[in-house]
Amino acid sequence: MPVRRPAVAALAAGLLLSAIAHADEGMWMPTQLPELAKPMRAVGFRGDPRALADVTAPPLSAVVKVGGGTGAFVSGEGLLLTNHHVAYGVIQYNSTPGRDIIEGGFIAEGRGDERPSNPDFRVLVTIGFDKVTDEVLEHARGTTGRAYFDAVDAASKRIVAECEQAGNVRCSVANMYYGTDFYRITQLELRDVRLVYAPPRAIGNYGDEIDNFMWPRHSGDFTLLRAYVGRDGKPADYSADNVPYQPPAHLQVAREGLQAGDYAMLAGYPGTTFRHRTAAEFAHQVQATLPQRVSVFDALIDALEAAGSADADVRTRYASQLQSLKNNRKRAAGELEGLQRSRAVDQRSADEAAMLARTTGDDLATITQLQAILADAAGQGERDLLLGLVASQTQLMRSALLLERLRIESAKPDEMRESGYQQRDQALLEGVLKQVQRRYAPQAEKALLTVLLGRYQQLPDAQRVPAFDAAFGRTPEALERVLDRVYAATSLGEEPARLSRFAAARDGRPMADDPLLALAAPLVAAQLELEDARKTRDGEQLRLRPAYMHALFDWRASQGRAVYPDANGTLRISYGRVEALSPRDAVAFSPVTTVAGIVEKHTGQAPFDAPAPLLEAIAAEDFAGNADPALRTQPVNFLTNLDTTGGNSGSPVLDARGQVVGLNFDSNWESVSASWWFDPRTKRAIHVDMRYMRWLMGKVYPAPALLEEMGLPTP
Amino acid sequence: MPVRRPAVAALAAGLLLSAIAHADEGMWMPTQLPELAKPMRAVGFRGDPRALADVTAPPLSAVVKVGGGTGAFVSGEGLLLTNHHVAYGVIQYNSTPGRDIIEGGFIAEGRGDERPSNPDFRVLVTIGFDKVTDEVLEHARGTTGRAYFDAVDAASKRIVAECEQAGNVRCSVANMYYGTDFYRITQLELRDVRLVYAPPRAIGNYGDEIDNFMWPRHSGDFTLLRAYVGRDGKPADYSADNVPYQPPAHLQVAREGLQAGDYAMLAGYPGTTFRHRTAAEFAHQVQATLPQRVSVFDALIDALEAAGSADADVRTRYASQLQSLKNNRKRAAGELEGLQRSRAVDQRSADEAAMLARTTGDDLATITQLQAILADAAGQGERDLLLGLVASQTQLMRSALLLERLRIESAKPDEMRESGYQQRDQALLEGVLKQVQRRYAPQAEKALLTVLLGRYQQLPDAQRVPAFDAAFGRTPEALERVLDRVYAATSLGEEPARLSRFAAARDGRPMADDPLLALAAPLVAAQLELEDARKTRDGEQLRLRPAYMHALFDWRASQGRAVYPDANGTLRISYGRVEALSPRDAVAFSPVTTVAGIVEKHTGQAPFDAPAPLLEAIAAEDFAGNADPALRTQPVNFLTNLDTTGGNSGSPVLDARGQVVGLNFDSNWESVSASWWFDPRTKRAIHVDMRYMRWLMGKVYPAPALLEEMGLPTP
Repeated sequence: MPVRRPAVAALAAGLLLSAIAHADEGMWMPTQLPELAKPMRAVGFRGDPRALADVTAPPLSAVVKVGGGTGAFVSGEGLLLTNHHVAYGVIQYNSTPGRDIIEGGFIAEGRGDERPSNPDFRVLVTIGFDKVTDEVLEHARGTTGRAYFDAVDAASKRIVAECEQAGNVRCSVANMYYGTDFYRITQLELRDVRLVYAPPRAIGNYGDEIDNFMWPRHSGDFTLLRAYVGRDGKPADYSADNVPYQPPAHLQVAREGLQAGDYAMLAGYPGTTFRHRTAAEFAHQVQATLPQRVSVFDALIDALEAAGSADADVRTRYASQLQSLKNNRKRAAGELEGLQRSRAVDQRSADEAAMLARTTGDDLATITQLQAILADAAGQGERDLLLGLVASQTQLMRSALLLERLRIESAKPDEMRESGYQQRDQALLEGVLKQVQRRYAPQAEKALLTVLLGRYQQLPDAQRVPAFDAAFGRTPEALERVLDRVYAATSLGEEPARLSRFAAARDGRPMADDPLLALAAPLVAAQLELEDARKTRDGEQLRLRPAYMHALFDWRASQGRAVYPDANGTLRISYGRVEALSPRDAVAFSPVTTVAGIVEKHTGQAPFDAPAPLLEAIAAEDFAGNADPALRTQPVNFLTNLDTTGGNSGSPVLDARGQVVGLNFDSNWESVSASWWFDPRTKRAIHVDMRYMRWLMGKVYPAPALLEEMGLPTP
Repeated sequence: MPVRRPAVAALAAGLLLSAIAHADEGMWMPTQLPELAKPMRAVGFRGDPRALADVTAPPLSAVVKVGGGTGAFVSGEGLLLTNHHVAYGVIQYNSTPGRDIIEGGFIAEGRGDERPSNPDFRVLVTIGFDKVTDEVLEHARGTTGRAYFDAVDAASKRIVAECEQAGNVRCSVANMYYGTDFYRITQLELRDVRLVYAPPRAIGNYGDEIDNFMWPRHSGDFTLLRAYVGRDGKPADYSADNVPYQPPAHLQVAREGLQAGDYAMLAGYPGTTFRHRTAAEFAHQVQATLPQRVSVFDALIDALEAAGSADADVRTRYASQLQSLKNNRKRAAGELEGLQRSRAVDQRSADEAAMLARTTGDDLATITQLQAILADAAGQGERDLLLGLVASQTQLMRSALLLERLRIESAKPDEMRESGYQQRDQALLEGVLKQVQRRYAPQAEKALLTVLLGRYQQLPDAQRVPAFDAAFGRTPEALERVLDRVYAATSLGEEPARLSRFAAARDGRPMADDPLLALAAPLVAAQLELEDARKTRDGEQLRLRPAYMHALFDWRASQGRAVYPDANGTLRISYGRVEALSPRDAVAFSPVTTVAGIVEKHTGQAPFDAPAPLLEAIAAEDFAGNADPALRTQPVNFLTNLDTTGGNSGSPVLDARGQVVGLNFDSNWESVSASWWFDPRTKRAIHVDMRYMRWLMGKVYPAPALLEEMGLPTP
């Protein structure tokens, strides 16, 4: 069968796509699901969406935040399913030179053998989700700018503090629809989490960076943890006396899998999206921000490669930073490419124009004000990018800026200090100052600053800051002189020099003189002013954006569509189906991969070094009932059109009956731009097929007691 | 639709594949086609195979050798269709700084504007194909070894000389079925060939090296030439007075294209295949030759990269050699990977075992002798590889070996000299000696020789040659001393020193002393002895292999199958169908690409810099009747399962009625191993869709007169 491609007509006519661009798009608040009953049933959902509306009741109360991702309880005894990469820190924490469980995997021999996680690892169970809009905005209403920002900030902090008084909970105020609504999220904080089952690295992370963002994929990216509580049933630090947590709900792992076209849905905690930003913000992202990022990352990469080309020591010290710059460059270029391919700017513009054409009165006036504020912020974008990189891409300069800021913050009472400079942050700050030694070479840092500040010097007057001009001059020659002079004279390259000043700044004592500290002091003062201006703009956006959202609600309602809030780390549901991917002319990817692909990719060298027991089990073809009936072999991963973003790692994928058929772990490369624009032609999410997990746990690295605990048959 | 993959069972059970391994395999001599009528018709052929049996009669007389590939006449006035890359030298020859027709393409403004080709460019029209087995073997029969070789060689040379006496023809003796049959091929040699139409580089070679061997593909790799003859109708050198050649036949370009599953066939001049080599030769190729090649190429690449790492001049001088080594390494690794993936050794072994089980008497005894000869040759394989690279990968060492050999050959009458050292070769030899300067650095050459001769020193005694041991010692230290001494003292690094010795050697005068020449003299003497031994072995193989082929004929006949001779540069036909490709788990490629892919790949940077007129024409969607009815857009390239190898470039692809629907130009990466083993799951040939050519010539870079000449509608 030839793969059918849309005629070029459809590719060329951007607006044609608008009609389908919302198909299956949406990270819905569970409370919205009842109004989506019709489209959910049309795709194949068989349950009652009202049963999914309460995040604090079964079944959704089984879906929890785990580390930086998502997980789900899969037994009444606190057994928790998440990704291998989400639980990686826990696995690493329990790995020793004598027993490398990263490489070899881990199967607890009974509950007594379950291993404690690193102390800062947390599982958060959402137990409250309450609208507090009026409380948050009470004192903000009627104000503008910085006052609006401060009123919202103060109200939010008060709500959080009151909420956390009960103890054992972590509270937050979530901003939905850009200042339109605020919700208080109450989460039970489970602090004793243990490692139960992890596959070997070459299964859990088969393909590693090479396969990252790729499809077809062949990864067993899952791990089982267990949450424990004190004997009183309350959250507790690790103790041998603790008992398994009994979650308010747990999900049933399915006995069957999905086929192409089958209904699927996913619950999780997606981090951040920008889907409801204005057309001007879309245009700025594509025309300015992303090209600027690609360009400056390219220049920094070139600078580091040049500095390292003749110096192996520099290469070693900057290897990790260089790799990170390359990854960031790739991400920015991929996002740009995706937004251009999807014609996101044209589509968002046409959509917004249609919306504004039906918006009148106060809302329209407010939106006009908003657009002016956004244009002003956009005008500072390149400056903010460059100055941000001056701090984040350097070691000595970063140290100097950090010390000076710490000195200023330490003069305030602890609770008034900027987040990141409080008492509880000091170990982290000291760590930053200590790691300088392994990652610093003066010629490389000067080369990086020459790129960043050289570009800064080229900015138009309106973007530049007098303190920076004064510090670094206005010409490349002046910049070179300053950097040469300061880096030759500073003592901050010596760890004792940094740490003695850290002790002084932390304790509010004056720091011993240093040329780099002297250079940094007026820069920090200028940054504080920029920060103040940013908060003023943020306050205005908080005040003005709700008008834009109201106009959008009306416009979508006229189209028969609901509006989900952009992702903000709160629990969301997306629904859709198992769907193949045809990303390019004449290329078609099946939505299901099989163990044949593991064998094909196997080279014996990491990351394609499938363990011998896995290869033998594949060759033996004893799939113990987990083979796909149509493919007649063992499925491994599958693809859906579900709407996901960072934070959805470990999200359970449910079938039409609400049973767990998959575990979300990645997206395809074509959808890196989905944080801004959901393109149904290319947006896919990648999941571990639960039949692969069941087969691994049944036949390859057996754990029959765990299968039984999950109510699954043992082979 | 999910892409269905064979169950792992089928992948694992190699022998299961034997049953299908011959589907559509075959580079048939046209004389064999009548016996293939049934399978050809089963695939969809609608004509009479007997009409294709005579290579000297229409329609096959339209298919000719062009440069290093194939072409076909497509009008009665000598218009010739071949690949852009086959005609590249002609395009380059006519490109000037003032008018870069490589970049811009070329359309002749009438016949007077058609441009002459480079003087050594030839078109060969096959006008005779006659079996001469008895004549060739008359004096060989009853002899063995070197005598057998020399008798075949002498008879072949005599036949060629007699044949060429008529003039204007080039004759050759083709060895079919490894010494079983010999054919005299008579070809009319057309020397006045002109450039008529070439697309711009960014169409004719869209994707260049990046897309080479890749599918999906989007290349317009075609060019039109025209053959001219003297006013007397006979071949002639270029002259303005010449007239278009009237070919004995020409093909009709089709008005419609093919769909997946449609019948297709291809005629051309494939170069070399090894399909009927013995199981032991297959095993040696996979277990020894290819891994040895990969390993030694890796070591040479490492040596050049190390030599160049701190020296930009060395990097420049060796850039082209390094790229070539990398390409060779990639090819060898790809061939190895493909043969392993296809389990070619297991399958060939099982097939041969079944064959030998039914072979008896003299044939079986002869095959046993053959196997001993082959084992002996295989035992020298690594030595021959290394010593071959000593000559081909060096500059000064190669020069010394060449000069010494030239000195020896020049002592003989010209017609007795080894090919490559005759009078007519001297310009080429001088060129080799002159280009040394741009490609030589002593430390890099010593590093290469250290790799090659270091490996040579590790070979078992039976493979080593006393003269080489004497020259380079038996230890790395001895080797280093010899190389340091000789390269410090030789004057062959200077061009005048090489050319003065060239003049002496060529004229049979003694060459001035030089340490490297002194080192080379005994090596050349040893190489001559090795050459003599090789000819003796070759004679034995010529004598013994026919028994193996007879056994194969019988075995295949019992399976109801015919046997095609391995490719040897003579005209062959393969038939099959348009077929998709699913090379890996969950990956499926459509067999037809469209102009949408050109737009998707376009970056504006070579090799993905589609010309503006092409992009505009794609956007305009005026495909002038060339759109595919099912895809509803313009097709570009398509994929068949036809059996091809190097030399098939430019082969016309014909539909069931014998009309030209495509032009062969490449294969997919998975089929680089097809010179040894045809795997129907992965062997594909890549063609330009004639609808793309017609659209380009009709709408994008119009040439209505040429379309009319080919009997095609103009838009």
